[in-house]
Amino acid sequence: MLKNLSITEFLEKTASSSPVPGGGSVAALAAALAASLAEMVANLTIGKKGFEDVDREMKAIAKKTRNYRDKLVQDIDKDADSYKAVVAAYGMAKATDEEKLKRTTAIQEALKQAALVPLKVAGDAADLLELSGKVAKKGNKNAITDAAVGVMMARTAVLAALYNVKTNLNSIKDPSFVDSISKDVNALEERILQREKELLSEIDL
Amino acid sequence: MLKNLSITEFLEKTASSSPVPGGGSVAALAAALAASLAEMVANLTIGKKGFEDVDREMKAIAKKTRNYRDKLVQDIDKDADSYKAVVAAYGMAKATDEEKLKRTTAIQEALKQAALVPLKVAGDAADLLELSGKVAKKGNKNAITDAAVGVMMARTAVLAALYNVKTNLNSIKDPSFVDSISKDVNALEERILQREKELLSEIDL
Repeated sequence: MLKNLSITEFLEKTASSSPVPGGGSVAALAAALAASLAEMVANLTIGKKGFEDVDREMKAIAKKTRNYRDKLVQDIDKDADSYKAVVAAYGMAKATDEEKLKRTTAIQEALKQAALVPLKVAGDAADLLELSGKVAKKGNKNAITDAAVGVMMARTAVLAALYNVKTNLNSIKDPSFVDSISKDVNALEERILQREKELLSEIDL
Repeated sequence: MLKNLSITEFLEKTASSSPVPGGGSVAALAAALAASLAEMVANLTIGKKGFEDVDREMKAIAKKTRNYRDKLVQDIDKDADSYKAVVAAYGMAKATDEEKLKRTTAIQEALKQAALVPLKVAGDAADLLELSGKVAKKGNKNAITDAAVGVMMARTAVLAALYNVKTNLNSIKDPSFVDSISKDVNALEERILQREKELLSEIDL
């Protein structure tokens, strides 16, 4: 599994001409990195003098970010697997009309799944953007740079995941699916660009 | 070494209350991920029908991005080490005037080094932003999403590394060092925000 590769091996495998892991897995990893940074800042705040008022909130954030990290590290593989399923569907037999229909249906199902996986990653990363903003504002000031990096990694995770959603939507033939997801994508994209700006402007190094 | 940890272990270690790896190492990793994605798109273009005109250029890009990847994966550890050196300097004896002077000098030297490491990462990531833009424009269209993710990861790597430069500059007492680096930081920050927008606007999914 990709999550068990070393950093060096993961980078090597990404760089190779094998199409996975690609941008979708990197988006999930970026979100997991944002989760780790927010968790770190929360952990560096819990129990610290002068931060008694936010101790309970930081403990809750550490727990939440931990859960996101555990989920997102799985999504690195999930995204790669959903891409492989699309490739497998395209490779199905298409000699008879029955085979053709079966293949087309399988492709469309696989494409929907390959759009939904990064859409979920984008939603989780959007939550992590807000959690990173919270630890930046209320957490240990010595770690404010780490919180800022968390905000930026979460922003890029959202946008990167949404690019992966959009590229799959391009091949999906179900107009109501495409319309509904496209609306979510555009709204989230716009919101995240705005929120990153707001959160970073509040961070004073 | 951090680069030999598995993805899961690296995330775990980042999330812990130990201050390294932190935002600086994550910035270097983000830049290395951008390098890997640009290299992948170049590799998916080399030798492909219809891309004969850019074959030589893609081979050059694959080589360059490979070199950046090798450098940047080392910077993950280098950044953590430079932070540890700052902490070690702060921990030096300060009983006598001589010890105090020695300690202050060591702290200032360590802080300069801790600013220069991410400044170098930011410069490399800025180059990778342009290389990602090039493979997005001229490379295999099937991998254009990967190139777009490369552009965004490079952008966030630059900005994240520059936050780490700035936070160290805050404690450096040498005004000419601070002034000169601050100018570089501000110019690079402004340029990268602009270039990401331009490059992404040229990418049509």
